[in-house]
Amino acid sequence: MDIDARRKSDPEHWKLASAIRVLAMDAVEAANSGHPGMPMGMADVATVLFRNHLKFDASAPHWFDRDRFVLSAGHGSMLIYSLLHLTGYQQMTIEQIRNFRQLGAITAGHPEYGHVEGVETTTGPLGQGIATAVGMAMAEEAMRAEFGPELCDHRTWVIAGDGCLMEGISQEAIGLAGVQKLGRLIVLWDNNDITIDGRVSLSDKTDQRARFEASGWRVLSCDGHDAADIDRALSEAAVDDGRPVLVDCKTIIGFGAPTKSDSAKAHGSPLGAEEIAATRKAFGWDAPAFEIPQDIAATWKEIGARGAKLRDAWETRVNALSTDSREEFTRRIENKPNAQLAENISALKSKTSAEKPKLATRKASENTLAVLNPDMPENFGGSADLTGSNNTKTPDMGIFSAENRLGRYIHYGIREHGMAAAMNGIWLHGGFRAYGGTFMTFTDYARGAIRLSALMGLPVVYVMTHDSIGLGEDGPTHQPVEHLAICRATPNLLMLRPCDQVETAEAWEIALTQTNRPSVMALSRQGLPTLRNTHLDENLSAKGAYVLRDATGGKPEVVLMATGSEVEIAVNARDTLEAAGTPTRVVSVPSMELFRAQPAAYRQDVLPAGTVRIAIEAAVRQPWDWLLLGERGREEKSDFIGMKGFGASAPAPELYKEFGITVEAVVERAKALL
Amino acid sequence: MDIDARRKSDPEHWKLASAIRVLAMDAVEAANSGHPGMPMGMADVATVLFRNHLKFDASAPHWFDRDRFVLSAGHGSMLIYSLLHLTGYQQMTIEQIRNFRQLGAITAGHPEYGHVEGVETTTGPLGQGIATAVGMAMAEEAMRAEFGPELCDHRTWVIAGDGCLMEGISQEAIGLAGVQKLGRLIVLWDNNDITIDGRVSLSDKTDQRARFEASGWRVLSCDGHDAADIDRALSEAAVDDGRPVLVDCKTIIGFGAPTKSDSAKAHGSPLGAEEIAATRKAFGWDAPAFEIPQDIAATWKEIGARGAKLRDAWETRVNALSTDSREEFTRRIENKPNAQLAENISALKSKTSAEKPKLATRKASENTLAVLNPDMPENFGGSADLTGSNNTKTPDMGIFSAENRLGRYIHYGIREHGMAAAMNGIWLHGGFRAYGGTFMTFTDYARGAIRLSALMGLPVVYVMTHDSIGLGEDGPTHQPVEHLAICRATPNLLMLRPCDQVETAEAWEIALTQTNRPSVMALSRQGLPTLRNTHLDENLSAKGAYVLRDATGGKPEVVLMATGSEVEIAVNARDTLEAAGTPTRVVSVPSMELFRAQPAAYRQDVLPAGTVRIAIEAAVRQPWDWLLLGERGREEKSDFIGMKGFGASAPAPELYKEFGITVEAVVERAKALL
Repeated sequence: MDIDARRKSDPEHWKLASAIRVLAMDAVEAANSGHPGMPMGMADVATVLFRNHLKFDASAPHWFDRDRFVLSAGHGSMLIYSLLHLTGYQQMTIEQIRNFRQLGAITAGHPEYGHVEGVETTTGPLGQGIATAVGMAMAEEAMRAEFGPELCDHRTWVIAGDGCLMEGISQEAIGLAGVQKLGRLIVLWDNNDITIDGRVSLSDKTDQRARFEASGWRVLSCDGHDAADIDRALSEAAVDDGRPVLVDCKTIIGFGAPTKSDSAKAHGSPLGAEEIAATRKAFGWDAPAFEIPQDIAATWKEIGARGAKLRDAWETRVNALSTDSREEFTRRIENKPNAQLAENISALKSKTSAEKPKLATRKASENTLAVLNPDMPENFGGSADLTGSNNTKTPDMGIFSAENRLGRYIHYGIREHGMAAAMNGIWLHGGFRAYGGTFMTFTDYARGAIRLSALMGLPVVYVMTHDSIGLGEDGPTHQPVEHLAICRATPNLLMLRPCDQVETAEAWEIALTQTNRPSVMALSRQGLPTLRNTHLDENLSAKGAYVLRDATGGKPEVVLMATGSEVEIAVNARDTLEAAGTPTRVVSVPSMELFRAQPAAYRQDVLPAGTVRIAIEAAVRQPWDWLLLGERGREEKSDFIGMKGFGASAPAPELYKEFGITVEAVVERAKALL
Repeated sequence: MDIDARRKSDPEHWKLASAIRVLAMDAVEAANSGHPGMPMGMADVATVLFRNHLKFDASAPHWFDRDRFVLSAGHGSMLIYSLLHLTGYQQMTIEQIRNFRQLGAITAGHPEYGHVEGVETTTGPLGQGIATAVGMAMAEEAMRAEFGPELCDHRTWVIAGDGCLMEGISQEAIGLAGVQKLGRLIVLWDNNDITIDGRVSLSDKTDQRARFEASGWRVLSCDGHDAADIDRALSEAAVDDGRPVLVDCKTIIGFGAPTKSDSAKAHGSPLGAEEIAATRKAFGWDAPAFEIPQDIAATWKEIGARGAKLRDAWETRVNALSTDSREEFTRRIENKPNAQLAENISALKSKTSAEKPKLATRKASENTLAVLNPDMPENFGGSADLTGSNNTKTPDMGIFSAENRLGRYIHYGIREHGMAAAMNGIWLHGGFRAYGGTFMTFTDYARGAIRLSALMGLPVVYVMTHDSIGLGEDGPTHQPVEHLAICRATPNLLMLRPCDQVETAEAWEIALTQTNRPSVMALSRQGLPTLRNTHLDENLSAKGAYVLRDATGGKPEVVLMATGSEVEIAVNARDTLEAAGTPTRVVSVPSMELFRAQPAAYRQDVLPAGTVRIAIEAAVRQPWDWLLLGERGREEKSDFIGMKGFGASAPAPELYKEFGITVEAVVERAKALL
């Protein structure tokens, strides 16, 4: 490519884009790690996007009606950091750029939501950005339908690379966006033909344009280094014709680096001093590292201020709303809690304690949602094609679709990973609390996005039913065994496994009042009795573990701990042990994370030292060692009744017998340990 | 559809297919759970496939040169059970069919490899079958190239549904098959337009044919209820023109059920007695449940015996080989161990103990593979586009591609899930031991397939590098924290985290001699010293944990346990403690699973009671409670030095300091606990 001709054809654009390129290569060099090639390759596209198309105001990163910009190819983090710095985001000082990838800097290796303003979602694990953006775009459609285009009227722009498009999650995103006709979702494909291992052709020959078209996308293309051509393509892309848009931007990775551009060498390592010097020369860039010439800096700052008028006008419209409307709109876009939640939960608990129904906790979850959803317009539900099994849909919710943007229930299709990422996007956009269902075992399929929920601290709710061998005949492929342990091992994730309708209502109250962590709710397929027979306003599950049945006739000699469907076993074992004269306490443990956060005195009250302790859970033991051996437990006086390996196919009651998770086994073990 | 006309147009086919349909609906009814609709819808296609195309011999389910048949839509398990029964697989008696989904029966809810002969891979989690089949087809190409078409010459047939095709993993499989030009891979798409939630259009409008074509597939189609048309399509499909084949089979779910066919009602529940009676009538099927009329049974048995001659001829060719060739071929197809492995490992260990190099364990892994691979033609390596980072390629391995089927290294592309499933398929096919690399944190992306490796008991090897915050600047999205716990919580999975070159060599020896479980090898990005300075032939890592440095001057008062990159910290902390007069032992724990399997006496020797115990691992504590509090440990005398949450972006040494995983922290904690 004739760099010089490019440079001369549009000198102002050239300087603006060069500023990004130089910052990127210099920052990576200073950090001695990072990815210069992608920011250098996409600098032209990003410059045109920010200069002419993206609706944003650098002075107001949280302005609700901004366009969302998602860098799905998160390894190119210096692209977004450069843009934030140049356009004048207050946090993104040149010091931060200088400290790229250093401890304490906001310029993390990959862009992190919450770590720096202007980063809309955490990316790096490939494909997450594009799938999260689908959620953002759906939330935008829904908010626009609900509040009108005066208050919500923006686009979602994504930069994605070949890596994003090879990851399976991208197909789930593409399919979902296609059927949902998200015409304001625009993916800019950094088509540079290079992956870490070499040319894309080593591992893929997919015609991406045909692939996107096959799912109902509109496909445009441009020369990714020609500002006018990029501008034309983005202008076309910005017209919403009901199809999401892929713009095939033909680019050169490491654009301008004389020996390393268009090769994997430019991808993930510093270019080196010599190559950088030669690149500077090719760019006609004389300024030293981390210095942006005054005129270029000024033009970039103007770009950053371009949206201020639009924001002013939007704020005027918001302020013109009636007080009630404004307050509700503000509550929604700030994802604030719902005032009626506590009351509705308490009423349901009270009714349940009186009526004592026997039902699966997945059904209990549906009952809870049926009470909550009519008063919580922010609840946005869905399931990965298991609506009737996950019990996630309530009668008041219409189906969200291209024809009905007021619907609040999404048929995500058989796309667990795409669903989880979209849920993240819905929350990140603002306006809705997303929950979505699948079988507990398919947390496996969604792990990549669930981890990002936890890392970003997004209080989405995973409704995971069929949570043990209790699902029965579908067998070991569908029976979670290690998944409770997996969720509990994941930092900043709240794992809730309620035992009956009352605890399920409490679990929903907990999940829907979280502000900075996701919840995974593990729910049974099989029917369970109501064990919380006496109504209390207090949310006992919020303590994580509590005494459900206490020992009678003396201090407890045995403490039985259990969660979810196994609490019934514990209660029945206690009855037998008590009848035999052994004072026995049952501790229900709906959430280990919440119990861990209780004061030591409370924990000691619930789990006194010196007793026999048995934990019962139809899953692996790993997370229970803490409560059996720790918290003043003792190895020789404790045991675990649960799963040692994978399950099997049979009716649930037979499986519980087969794997020895029975009242008899608990009683026997308790007696042996006494 | 005019059932009657269909029935009359080809009466023999009709009867054969009806036998499948009736068995399926009757078995589901008897089990009172299962999926009748899919077997009923695909019975015609399956009948034509087994009758005219599939190369198999029901009397020899393990015949190496059989075609592989994969039911990716595993919920339709009664389809394959019916076929196995009808064609005369010995294990699949009518009693087993009667006991569908019951405890102890081989007719599990979803088809399970190893549980029943004739099931080539475990399916049920959607999309796994198609992705596993890609591995099988690659192994077939590779074996054919190596041993010639006289010994290996078969196809891989897959039945996949809309669910399989919506899952992201299917895209990874489609892309990989396309670039690899797997012309003998044929996917029969059960295009019935129904998912659990309703019509496919609720959640997808992807033009699947265009999508497959975009990745280089050949697309055919047929009326899935017209035997002649199916036969035509399968005949065309069987011609290998270097493109994998999708056959779009237009079908009706629950075909023949008068009120439930073509609806979600036929998908996942018994049809009910009334509907079954009406369906029988429509089929003209008078026989009672589980009885197959003599003539139909006889024809099906002939179909099952159709391949016997081909098998005889193949066996004759195998027997005609020279003894050496035959023995090696047999060793390979039976996945038997390699005789030279132990010797090569021992030599490397000896050299290492003498030279004491400092290097990352990912590099140590490469060194080990460089020694092993030339003598192990069965090793089939690859990486999900991180070859240079995972250090998975050795110089002797060519690149496996359409142009070079003798290559033994696959560029899997950015497809962790597809890679893991393909690795399962490679092993299942026979002839190769697959290993594949990515970053440890992306076990998340591959979880669905890794779990199946464990459930099926396949000794594939996951080479997971960059295994902690020690990867440094890439930050928390790339830093595994909970992933060691996740692997350890997974039943039947061997998790290995070696501390130096010697342990890495031992880890490979362990992994490559496993017969019934996968290994996950967690390897460092950063350099580590050689800690095993004295050569021993014995594989100490095989004990799971062992005394690496013992206390001097008395019984140990402190025991430091660590794995991988943290063993160095333990060794240095011991030096400090010993210098201060505290007898301190270091226990290296390369594998908790292996240590758990040791006799109690050995475990007590390694971890004596009554000492201070500290575990050091740059990960969450969850799996360590066992060794800190259990195994006669004590809460008040033990502690864990590791991660409490997610990592951060910075150079690795700074992160270790930031998160308090240092020699000083260990020493201080030990002193406090003494």
